[in-house]
Amino acid sequence: MGLNPALGIRIGRLPAGPKNLITDVPGLMVGHHTLAEGPVQTGVTVLLPGPDNCFTHKLPAAVTVFNGFGKSLGLMQIEELGQLETPIALTNTLSVGIAWTALCRHALSQNPGICLTTGTVNPVVFECNDGYLNDIRGLHIKEEHVLSALKNASPTFEEGSLGAGRGMRCHGLKGGIGSSSRVLDIAGHPYALGALVLANHGSLSDLTVAGRHIGPRAEELLNSGWTSGYEQQQDKGSVIVVLATDVPLDSIQLRRVSRRAVAGLSRTGSNIGHSSGEIALCFSTANPITHDDPAPFRQSLQLNEAHIDLLFRAAAEATEEAVLSALFHARPLTGRDGHRAHALSEVLAALKEKETQQAQD
Amino acid sequence: MGLNPALGIRIGRLPAGPKNLITDVPGLMVGHHTLAEGPVQTGVTVLLPGPDNCFTHKLPAAVTVFNGFGKSLGLMQIEELGQLETPIALTNTLSVGIAWTALCRHALSQNPGICLTTGTVNPVVFECNDGYLNDIRGLHIKEEHVLSALKNASPTFEEGSLGAGRGMRCHGLKGGIGSSSRVLDIAGHPYALGALVLANHGSLSDLTVAGRHIGPRAEELLNSGWTSGYEQQQDKGSVIVVLATDVPLDSIQLRRVSRRAVAGLSRTGSNIGHSSGEIALCFSTANPITHDDPAPFRQSLQLNEAHIDLLFRAAAEATEEAVLSALFHARPLTGRDGHRAHALSEVLAALKEKETQQAQD
Amino acid sequence: MGLNPALGIRIGRLPAGPKNLITDVPGLMVGHHTLAEGPVQTGVTVLLPGPDNCFTHKLPAAVTVFNGFGKSLGLMQIEELGQLETPIALTNTLSVGIAWTALCRHALSQNPGICLTTGTVNPVVFECNDGYLNDIRGLHIKEEHVLSALKNASPTFEEGSLGAGRGMRCHGLKGGIGSSSRVLDIAGHPYALGALVLANHGSLSDLTVAGRHIGPRAEELLNSGWTSGYEQQQDKGSVIVVLATDVPLDSIQLRRVSRRAVAGLSRTGSNIGHSSGEIALCFSTANPITHDDPAPFRQSLQLNEAHIDLLFRAAAEATEEAVLSALFHARPLTGRDGHRAHALSEVLAALKEKETQQAQD
Amino acid sequence: MGLNPALGIRIGRLPAGPKNLITDVPGLMVGHHTLAEGPVQTGVTVLLPGPDNCFTHKLPAAVTVFNGFGKSLGLMQIEELGQLETPIALTNTLSVGIAWTALCRHALSQNPGICLTTGTVNPVVFECNDGYLNDIRGLHIKEEHVLSALKNASPTFEEGSLGAGRGMRCHGLKGGIGSSSRVLDIAGHPYALGALVLANHGSLSDLTVAGRHIGPRAEELLNSGWTSGYEQQQDKGSVIVVLATDVPLDSIQLRRVSRRAVAGLSRTGSNIGHSSGEIALCFSTANPITHDDPAPFRQSLQLNEAHIDLLFRAAAEATEEAVLSALFHARPLTGRDGHRAHALSEVLAALKEKETQQAQD
Repeated sequence: MGLNPALGIRIGRLPAGPKNLITDVPGLMVGHHTLAEGPVQTGVTVLLPGPDNCFTHKLPAAVTVFNGFGKSLGLMQIEELGQLETPIALTNTLSVGIAWTALCRHALSQNPGICLTTGTVNPVVFECNDGYLNDIRGLHIKEEHVLSALKNASPTFEEGSLGAGRGMRCHGLKGGIGSSSRVLDIAGHPYALGALVLANHGSLSDLTVAGRHIGPRAEELLNSGWTSGYEQQQDKGSVIVVLATDVPLDSIQLRRVSRRAVAGLSRTGSNIGHSSGEIALCFSTANPITHDDPAPFRQSLQLNEAHIDLLFRAAAEATEEAVLSALFHARPLTGRDGHRAHALSEVLAALKEKETQQAQD
Repeated sequence: MGLNPALGIRIGRLPAGPKNLITDVPGLMVGHHTLAEGPVQTGVTVLLPGPDNCFTHKLPAAVTVFNGFGKSLGLMQIEELGQLETPIALTNTLSVGIAWTALCRHALSQNPGICLTTGTVNPVVFECNDGYLNDIRGLHIKEEHVLSALKNASPTFEEGSLGAGRGMRCHGLKGGIGSSSRVLDIAGHPYALGALVLANHGSLSDLTVAGRHIGPRAEELLNSGWTSGYEQQQDKGSVIVVLATDVPLDSIQLRRVSRRAVAGLSRTGSNIGHSSGEIALCFSTANPITHDDPAPFRQSLQLNEAHIDLLFRAAAEATEEAVLSALFHARPLTGRDGHRAHALSEVLAALKEKETQQAQD
Repeated sequence: MGLNPALGIRIGRLPAGPKNLITDVPGLMVGHHTLAEGPVQTGVTVLLPGPDNCFTHKLPAAVTVFNGFGKSLGLMQIEELGQLETPIALTNTLSVGIAWTALCRHALSQNPGICLTTGTVNPVVFECNDGYLNDIRGLHIKEEHVLSALKNASPTFEEGSLGAGRGMRCHGLKGGIGSSSRVLDIAGHPYALGALVLANHGSLSDLTVAGRHIGPRAEELLNSGWTSGYEQQQDKGSVIVVLATDVPLDSIQLRRVSRRAVAGLSRTGSNIGHSSGEIALCFSTANPITHDDPAPFRQSLQLNEAHIDLLFRAAAEATEEAVLSALFHARPLTGRDGHRAHALSEVLAALKEKETQQAQD
Repeated sequence: MGLNPALGIRIGRLPAGPKNLITDVPGLMVGHHTLAEGPVQTGVTVLLPGPDNCFTHKLPAAVTVFNGFGKSLGLMQIEELGQLETPIALTNTLSVGIAWTALCRHALSQNPGICLTTGTVNPVVFECNDGYLNDIRGLHIKEEHVLSALKNASPTFEEGSLGAGRGMRCHGLKGGIGSSSRVLDIAGHPYALGALVLANHGSLSDLTVAGRHIGPRAEELLNSGWTSGYEQQQDKGSVIVVLATDVPLDSIQLRRVSRRAVAGLSRTGSNIGHSSGEIALCFSTANPITHDDPAPFRQSLQLNEAHIDLLFRAAAEATEEAVLSALFHARPLTGRDGHRAHALSEVLAALKEKETQQAQD
């Protein structure tokens, strides 16, 4: 649902969609599977890009790698062909191999011709490192968890500390899954662009909320004895941005839209840290490509570039809001070895209380 | 000199160098040649990357293209070899061919062996479109203006509406040349990273100064009759960022540093507009490469990546400050066909006056 | 006209078009302007991608840089937007700035709105270094020579040592302009793909003609006193490949086609030398994009990838034949400082004579 | 052992190393694990890039993707950092996830600090589709097979139809694992460059052996009733090239060397088919990078580019010979559903016999 309007925080100038989720783009579904027991604090989130079998109805797609220090799988083929042909899975870093195999097996079961009468399949898996809160070395994600997340997929979904977001930290606080959307008017017709982020990046001292650089004060609070167990986090966690739209864009246009996610990331205070894998994938649900189409040519629509700045703005705004939404929806968590992550909401409440008290003194 | 400290605006947390200019990196010099007569409001700015003949002492370099809708020349060879071998010229879009020829002739005269006993030379020319204020179609830049800028090069230089910045607009106001620097402490030794920008991008409604989104109020003022002749500008002008450092970095590391310029650009409100060519080049003055070196191998130093986040932060901060410095140093200008650009300082003064008046009312 | 059938050399398996020139793609025209006086042995070749004003009817295009040690101009914007909007000029390395300005002025005169009511223009200029035979440091190409080449453009044109090819060497022999085409049958409809090369690369010892590695024997001959003035050439000269087709391909597909030029280049013996700028540009005349189109969307056709291997084969075959055609059409030349380049035809005749004599002995 | 000298086929002009294998680069080891039972005809091949723990002694590396229609894993981080930090596994397409997990677990067991006291790890897995001969949908590769291949690693190893090469086809015949090496003299010191290929690409009609285009005659033979069960193969199988050298090269130079593999591939007749994932990775064993090095800077050697053409030639020659070596070492195989692949040696013998017979007739 993006940022709760009750917070009074507004990102950018375009209107949000009805759910303020990536699923405002018609046909999309998101599902989680969460593992939360003692030191095991991790999970899987999947995005189904449409109601159809994604292998037989491929979608135009593109990728931008802002920082390639990461282990995400399946991007090379998207860069080559500009086509997405499986659901997208997000999980922890060391589980990408298992998630890849799960998506592969899922595609094999849905498409008996793969590797027999037709070619191979290209699963897409994104990851962030949740090893501070989660026993990531235990490789607790199993193929069945990916399938469970696929089954749980729905047009509405929760944000925050669940699914792949379970063990993530962002700007030194509890991070996780966030989403947001924007409505675009093109020639009198409404379109949607949505963002889904897995937010596990940034340092607290840089945290900026809607232009307010609150990081230093938050850091002072956390170091002041208000809490115990706060450990500073370097900007090394990674962030994944998935953008979707129903505007007809070809792959070269989608690549350009995906590149603008970085404007949104920068505005919450990220400098794209050295070990922070930062990647944006963007796809369009218009112009699906039929696998094994016998026709020699296919016809498609593309946006006239004269309107593309609207998409760029929407990508930047939805990404910024999705990161903040992950932070605002996250709940505090104590994971492996007593490691703790505070929630932004806690910190803001404590800062407000402190201010009130100071005003009274 | 970057942002005047008297403004009380502080960008980021790293200290600025003594001049707060890209020339805080030892050896660098910048020169301008300005044409300012009636409808001709344009110029050339050159950056000499060091005191040596740049062709015989090449510097490790790298480039990131955030948006390639632009005509800058010479980047392909830098991407291939990771080496800079001429001064860098900045000018208006339609004059890049002439500036290329001027830099070429300059290199030929300094290096009699080019194309006789040794290979060719790769001039680097950046551009933005100053056609709103300048009669750009007149192709007024001549080779001699580039040579004049080279002669004018000095370790100190002015920012704002001169040289290549003469006719530029930025966030709907007068833009131009801006610069800034940061001092980095690596293992107890001070290093510098500096930024030089040619700022001609952005829309007024997005303008954000140190996190304060002042664009909408500024726009309201300009539309209110406070002035005449204000025309809204779409985010279509381009911005060039040149980053330099004396930290020993190889080309792959320099590419990563150059990519972080976008964080700085994003924070003044840019979404990397469709027709805004946005490019960052980064070079290091450490480890110069001797042309026609007979030795089979060369030795070099590289930063350990454990410290590279410091460079990333410096690149983001110096870029953001350099854009703001261009805006704060720019003076209002009336150019071709009566087209006008206001200065940020005027607008801020008017906004302050208005607020004072409103407070009195 | 590609390889003269009388030579009995056949490259690949696809049929050539009626002219066996890039202009078998309907609408294309090629023109030369040659300077040939004493040490001045150089020129300009231009390709008009269609009968229309290229700025108002842009064509889908893409580029692959096999080796970026080169000074070609205008590629960055094609990579960003996937669109070609001017004729393509080819000339010597140090004249690219002048040729850029000439194409720019030509576009300004054809399109009075550029930089006034609409945006800027992106000329494309390719180059190779003809400094062995030509007084390249003299910068003898003037803007008028580019305009003259544009005026000379025609659906039929000569290959070999003229236009930009005047001073080029290839595989140690006289190189220059070569062209070839292939006819493709897609769903019963004939299409064309053509190649135009500026061949200035390779070493003689590697020269391979239709699989026959004749380089070593040719080198032995040239070193044997059969001729005087032969100097070995390192593989450092560059080769430019322009591919055109009327098959409807989008930019991402065109990029893939352009990449296959390297297969053709490799088969004449090139290893993509260090200082050999090797670049392929590919455009399609289908789906022209109307500049300043008011419609929010445009419709286009794309080839179904199931047929794209045919294009890949055509690109490889046409490129290989175009390089050989440049060699076979070239005439021997003595240029600056008595530097000589022999023609492949001379060398083959001498080798044949030698063999005949040896058979008789 | 590369091509058996008894064949009398010589590729290029540089001398091969003593083993004519990639393991002529000191320290390298290669191991196979083969599954060969009924319809299960597949396996794993691993390359250990040196005797040290690869995670703690990372190697400079780079990648070129000629055609990204493939599922290889781990390349993004190599492109970002220019460093290889695990052994390289090769296997069938659908098993890359499992192989990734196996390499991950192997690195975790060797490096207890991963994800606890230090960062994550980036396994590299390459693949080709062996689904014609192998029951690839059965996902028969298990993690233990990767570990077994690691245990089997040795400085000498067999080529042909084993390990990952077990079920591969190449140019319509039996393909698999091939290797070759070249010795380079730089300033009087001998260096090595080696290639390891997984060859599963190309069509028979294009097959070219050392310049002899024998494909059409081989195809005629196979279609003539000489054998049964021959099915034509489209150029859709993929080829992986791993290049290694002990010449000190930095990542940007290694990227350039990796790009030259395509010259070797082209010369055996490949046009880089649409669905043929073609990738080259190149690493250097000089200048290892110590993980968690406390020093702020590291010193390294790089080759002077004046010598790099030697590396380019070696890369092209070793790649071409490695592909041919895979073909010559391969044995005929009947796999799933009676699918058969003939061996090049069989076909050449039959062609020779046919010629002898024709000569006698």
